Amino acid sequence: MSETERPRRSTVRRLPDRARYDPAEIFAILDEGLVGHVGFVEDGQPFVIPMSYGRDGDRLYLHGSVASRLLRALGAGASVCVTVTLLDGLVLARSVFHHSMNYRSVVILGRAEVVDEPEEKMRALERLTEHLVPGRWSDARGPNEKELAKTLVLRVPLAEASAKVRTGPPQDDDEDYALPVWAGVLPYGPAPGRPEPDPRLREGFEPPDYVTGYRRPLN
Amino acid sequence: MSETERPRRSTVRRLPDRARYDPAEIFAILDEGLVGHVGFVEDGQPFVIPMSYGRDGDRLYLHGSVASRLLRALGAGASVCVTVTLLDGLVLARSVFHHSMNYRSVVILGRAEVVDEPEEKMRALERLTEHLVPGRWSDARGPNEKELAKTLVLRVPLAEASAKVRTGPPQDDDEDYALPVWAGVLPYGPAPGRPEPDPRLREGFEPPDYVTGYRRPLN
Repeated sequence: MSETERPRRSTVRRLPDRARYDPAEIFAILDEGLVGHVGFVEDGQPFVIPMSYGRDGDRLYLHGSVASRLLRALGAGASVCVTVTLLDGLVLARSVFHHSMNYRSVVILGRAEVVDEPEEKMRALERLTEHLVPGRWSDARGPNEKELAKTLVLRVPLAEASAKVRTGPPQDDDEDYALPVWAGVLPYGPAPGRPEPDPRLREGFEPPDYVTGYRRPLN
Repeated sequence: MSETERPRRSTVRRLPDRARYDPAEIFAILDEGLVGHVGFVEDGQPFVIPMSYGRDGDRLYLHGSVASRLLRALGAGASVCVTVTLLDGLVLARSVFHHSMNYRSVVILGRAEVVDEPEEKMRALERLTEHLVPGRWSDARGPNEKELAKTLVLRVPLAEASAKVRTGPPQDDDEDYALPVWAGVLPYGPAPGRPEPDPRLREGFEPPDYVTGYRRPLN
């Protein structure tokens, strides 16, 4: 998206050198993340709720119970903001002032739409599942009619999205580089642990490769 | 906080069995997290921006540049929501429908106030630094007058906060437990990597113990 085409409100204002608008970079951050922080307004009060999500091309999908007031309000056309943040590291500068974090984040502005069409709804649920654990959709029991009726799926177009990225070592003031203080980056990001089988798992089942070999980014 | 005292809007509506209102539990989640997702409203549009934070008793602190439009708007008394989410694991059920995440989250509603009083401002910066890396405040160069003047610190009272927690194995429908599908939890949470020294670090400096032994929760 060129500078002139970009909607003003999705243009990063603070530290614009950290801004990214390339869809490929935005998609990569969304695909690596797991939790979206969904912002909406109720009686003037902002609310931010963590939700899982999935992506299909330039559409982000959210889902939940048809009984959810939040989802129904969003589906009715309320303005929404979905933010996904990947924390990559803690940045330890020589001065307290220049401490920071390395991160990659995406902010999506827009309005959500309810996905009613059955084919898109099923496809969205597949994307949501495969986003969480690739390989799982073909392994687990798929949604039945009753479950589909209980599930509300929302589509958020990725038309108005921007990313912000910080990488690299601390940036100290020139005169501080001589200080006798360790400085650098402590990488800090999510990693999988050992799979914990359900206590009610039938005997003789080992976790599948897509669980034991789980990693993000997915590729 | 008792059920009757609790402000209605901070009462968890969806899946209320996952709700927690005990301050100790809320504080523990805040102290373990690193990134807060800060929601605010501008011209009716919600925005959600990731920020670091610190805590001192029942006060949450945010900080940033005095040039930040967001911080100034919040400091002027706008309604704010700060949400902190800890992802603990991916919950793989036998059915797609019951897939979930194990997580702990806190949602804080309120209004921010600018911290002008020098002693509280310095103490807030200490809490913010020690929240990121305990032990760092006494090691790094502290803020000078110029840096203090450039930094805006906001206080968000933790009066209206609630937590939501999911733990444990998947909960499948009874008839699905016989399915030949692996089910369980894949733990997935942040972990520190190897410290990366600043390329401009003076020779002979090893990372301090509070970096090599970094872990959260802090204790």
